[in-house]
Amino acid sequence: MDRVAVIGASMTQFGQRDAWIRELLAEAGQACLDDAGVPPDAVEHLYVSNMASGEFEGQTGVPNALAHDLAAMPAYTARIDQTSSSGGAGAYAAWQSVASGASEMTLLVGGEKMTHRSTAEATDVIASLTHPVEYKHGVTLPSFAGLTARLYLDTYDAPRESLGKVAVKNHRNGVDNPHAQFRKEVDLDTVLDSPIVADPLRLYDFCPITDGSAALLFCPESVAREYADEYAVVSGIGGATDTHVVHERADPTTMRGVVESSDQAYEMAELRPNDVDVAELHDMFTILEFLQFEDLGFAPKGEGWTAIEEGRTERDGDIPVNTSGGLKSKGHPLGASGVAQVYEIYQQVMGDAGKRQVDADVGLACNVGGFGNCVTTTILEAEA
Amino acid sequence: MDRVAVIGASMTQFGQRDAWIRELLAEAGQACLDDAGVPPDAVEHLYVSNMASGEFEGQTGVPNALAHDLAAMPAYTARIDQTSSSGGAGAYAAWQSVASGASEMTLLVGGEKMTHRSTAEATDVIASLTHPVEYKHGVTLPSFAGLTARLYLDTYDAPRESLGKVAVKNHRNGVDNPHAQFRKEVDLDTVLDSPIVADPLRLYDFCPITDGSAALLFCPESVAREYADEYAVVSGIGGATDTHVVHERADPTTMRGVVESSDQAYEMAELRPNDVDVAELHDMFTILEFLQFEDLGFAPKGEGWTAIEEGRTERDGDIPVNTSGGLKSKGHPLGASGVAQVYEIYQQVMGDAGKRQVDADVGLACNVGGFGNCVTTTILEAEA
Repeated sequence: MDRVAVIGASMTQFGQRDAWIRELLAEAGQACLDDAGVPPDAVEHLYVSNMASGEFEGQTGVPNALAHDLAAMPAYTARIDQTSSSGGAGAYAAWQSVASGASEMTLLVGGEKMTHRSTAEATDVIASLTHPVEYKHGVTLPSFAGLTARLYLDTYDAPRESLGKVAVKNHRNGVDNPHAQFRKEVDLDTVLDSPIVADPLRLYDFCPITDGSAALLFCPESVAREYADEYAVVSGIGGATDTHVVHERADPTTMRGVVESSDQAYEMAELRPNDVDVAELHDMFTILEFLQFEDLGFAPKGEGWTAIEEGRTERDGDIPVNTSGGLKSKGHPLGASGVAQVYEIYQQVMGDAGKRQVDADVGLACNVGGFGNCVTTTILEAEA
Repeated sequence: MDRVAVIGASMTQFGQRDAWIRELLAEAGQACLDDAGVPPDAVEHLYVSNMASGEFEGQTGVPNALAHDLAAMPAYTARIDQTSSSGGAGAYAAWQSVASGASEMTLLVGGEKMTHRSTAEATDVIASLTHPVEYKHGVTLPSFAGLTARLYLDTYDAPRESLGKVAVKNHRNGVDNPHAQFRKEVDLDTVLDSPIVADPLRLYDFCPITDGSAALLFCPESVAREYADEYAVVSGIGGATDTHVVHERADPTTMRGVVESSDQAYEMAELRPNDVDVAELHDMFTILEFLQFEDLGFAPKGEGWTAIEEGRTERDGDIPVNTSGGLKSKGHPLGASGVAQVYEIYQQVMGDAGKRQVDADVGLACNVGGFGNCVTTTILEAEA
């Protein structure tokens, strides 16, 4: 069977945007088609990764609107929602549509419009993904992050400073990403002195609320060759869940969804963790970068924090993490984030990452929904 | 390649239910696994068809909750939304997951909880799928139905009574469906004398607001044989869109999404319309049964109304339509409806439809989102 190729990618400016979800999706979708040189009427399936356009804007049916706006009708459309990992789930849906033979050209567009709502309102929408017993008792995702960070630091004798260094690294990377929400360096003291949000985590340990969209174009490898001399292939992809109630987890510092989904992706790609050259991890909170780093097999459990201390995850390290700036500085428009992760990996393996470029033939994106409730892992490799 | 089989199906009681979306989904999901004799830990992918649990209940992340409630973790999960055709889109996603090799056992559960909200509130959520210019000017889906019914009756010299007879037929069928919301016959005078909702359509031309859930279990044919002597195969499936703005359609009495999606399904199944023995059509409004009947190729354009006059769509006709009672009497819990349509077709081709049983080896389900904005068509055939 043909492998599934990625032949185009785009992302809009992330940040506070004076545009509605329809406009953001159309902007990224059109840019992706232009990037690949593919006309809209070649699109057979069109997936939209979006968590909550209905809750945020009172507008549903956005995939159909996008087919209309891109002149891609009668392309089949659907919305894929897996909360904050909707983008990774969209990549999996797009991959399945091509691998099953249902579509020979699938456009995936992820997006979210959030900043017109207050932080409290946005938090209310996001927290609706937790178990009813949790939110009712005041548990939101940032509070899970604080509890888990405390447990991690205590259990593994990790210094608080190591978490701050994740924010410093990702902000530094974001400076070189023209689409990032925050393009400014921060120093460690600024992070460590910022206001407490959920002890021990402070403001700079958290990603912002963001508007934005990103897109990817998938097709069989045989079709890819018609449009491009060089392209990437999805050599591995997988997805998995963990408990809906976080307190039921045997070890809250291990994310089973990351372990299981990456096992699937590595097996499919016939690769091991040390074959990965660059990774985009879901750093919604700084602590999550450590957990994923370990659960993806880049370090033993409890030693993820040493990677930032040793410089392994910097752009000149052996496994650069979040060269895009991560959710931390790039921003986190829920439905777009997983797509934008794969966008960054595509840029890196194609050698098109500009100032952010690292030496990479194999890249991995890990997209986490909720507090690890559902996870997708995608591996891309360059083909020429 | 293995064909994709359906080896189990279930639906809950439809109607006004004292249960939240999580409970409804778990009820149908468990019943479906029981029906097939498949343990929850065999489930690899789990899709939830649901339009708006966030808007209706303030609860998102329901696929993850369902994996938890069914003890199906770490099965991969995602929510599939295509507004009122979310169920058909879920069937397409489930089919793709198996046909692509990503999953050897995919459970699809569709559901919606609506009746705790007022009709005005529910209409507000549903109308959010229309183009912003439409709803802002007072256009809701029932008003589209009224305008289209008037155009159809005028253009094709069809009698108003023919629409009423669709309601009478589907209510009669619903009497024999133990899961239907309304199990009572209505006579033509009752329909024609009921209150006007959107002229010329009256109360009995409309489906109700409903709570409910339905489920299907998909696997490769080779795996199906391990669990069952008899099963059904998805011999054809397809999906397509039409304009987001209804007034841009060249002929509002033709639903391009129905034409395109059924063309795909017929081609894949190597069947023609007259090979279909039984069909579930999306009779959210009575007029839609005529439009789909024509656009699926069961009658020439403008002659769909003659089928009800001639008795062709009755249980003893040559192409029985909506033996389940249709959305009209069975009810229309948005995300469940497309799944429940395929449930009925599965019961029919397996010979398990009880008092509703007709002579059928090949059945078709057509699920319409919005006012034909997005459509999926699924064809099942019995295998023994």
